[in-house]
Amino acid sequence: MKTINAELLQKLQWRYATKVFNKKKKISPENWDVLEQSLLLSPSSYGLQPWKFIVVENESLREKLKPVSWGQNQVTDASHFIVFATLKELKAEFIESYIDRIAEVRGQLKESLSGYETMMKKNIVEGMKKDYVFHWNQRQAYIAMGFLLETAALLEIDTVPMEGIDPKAYDDILGLTNSDYGTVAAVALGYRDEADKYAEAKKVRFAKEKVIQFLK
Amino acid sequence: MKTINAELLQKLQWRYATKVFNKKKKISPENWDVLEQSLLLSPSSYGLQPWKFIVVENESLREKLKPVSWGQNQVTDASHFIVFATLKELKAEFIESYIDRIAEVRGQLKESLSGYETMMKKNIVEGMKKDYVFHWNQRQAYIAMGFLLETAALLEIDTVPMEGIDPKAYDDILGLTNSDYGTVAAVALGYRDEADKYAEAKKVRFAKEKVIQFLK
Repeated sequence: MKTINAELLQKLQWRYATKVFNKKKKISPENWDVLEQSLLLSPSSYGLQPWKFIVVENESLREKLKPVSWGQNQVTDASHFIVFATLKELKAEFIESYIDRIAEVRGQLKESLSGYETMMKKNIVEGMKKDYVFHWNQRQAYIAMGFLLETAALLEIDTVPMEGIDPKAYDDILGLTNSDYGTVAAVALGYRDEADKYAEAKKVRFAKEKVIQFLK
Repeated sequence: MKTINAELLQKLQWRYATKVFNKKKKISPENWDVLEQSLLLSPSSYGLQPWKFIVVENESLREKLKPVSWGQNQVTDASHFIVFATLKELKAEFIESYIDRIAEVRGQLKESLSGYETMMKKNIVEGMKKDYVFHWNQRQAYIAMGFLLETAALLEIDTVPMEGIDPKAYDDILGLTNSDYGTVAAVALGYRDEADKYAEAKKVRFAKEKVIQFLK
């Protein structure tokens, strides 16, 4: 039996940005459940989860998304296609809904969380510029993207994170335009096609010395 | 033997934002190697890796970082402390260094990559606003943060991602102010202290229906 260390290293090397998916191979419900949990359990600043993960199952919607994704085939061919959307703003009501949830999950009185609530409202709702909040929320969603991609690799599920998409057109197609959420990126998941020659290409990374610096 | 599915779910539930680290327990070199590889192998847009991971081993530097981190003890008490920094801009020279690296790793002639080089320079160096590039690079680093946090959990290593830091003060202390890189966040890693009552707190997540939406 391989150690978890060896398995992690092997799977992180195994993954690559999949260009061609096998249209016929679908992710099993058991594996899908773990992928969903990776998204749900992903950490975020203050635990706020300022995101929504939109799983586009509708084939005609996926056909519509393709031309606003540089025509990339992964949008329609992958087993699953998840659009990452984040809150455009963080309003007081959202903080309150989060406080309600803490109280509910932990069986606490809301009043006992009033200090935390006030602090978050002061720091975020009043203290951050709107434009900054938007970028900040997007960053948080990328932690969840990391969780999703690593979990998929461990389950031997192929993925490709996609930023080459038109977020505004996505918002229109997915009905987000007048909502609190906006598209930031997408991830296609499924199984690589045998014809995908990119699977064999050597992974290109800078030398460790360029990327990791030790201050001794 | 547990399946990888069960193990993943259990470890994702196990992790939490560690408040109190055991000062005496250190991450082994074998585990550290896997954590480093998670950072190095993390994907990024175009594969550009617009980041630097600064491992602060120097104790007096960590003492200096603590007051500009809301005085949080994790900065000094964790086994390892990694500062995430990203490129403030993406210049033509950086794209060229990446093209050089692709040519080196894959044994290709640089000339064969000139189309890719031109496309990246057009889209990124010329096509993106400076301010956007900065946020974009920060987002990429958060994918790597996701990889690091999930890998650590699988190795039963505790972590806390830290955004409650003063990036400008970090830049000064770490000598980044006049460099191409700027601090965005940090992660402390090590082992939880028995006294950390947060380890027992129930994880608070919104209901799945609020966060994951299916478009059928």
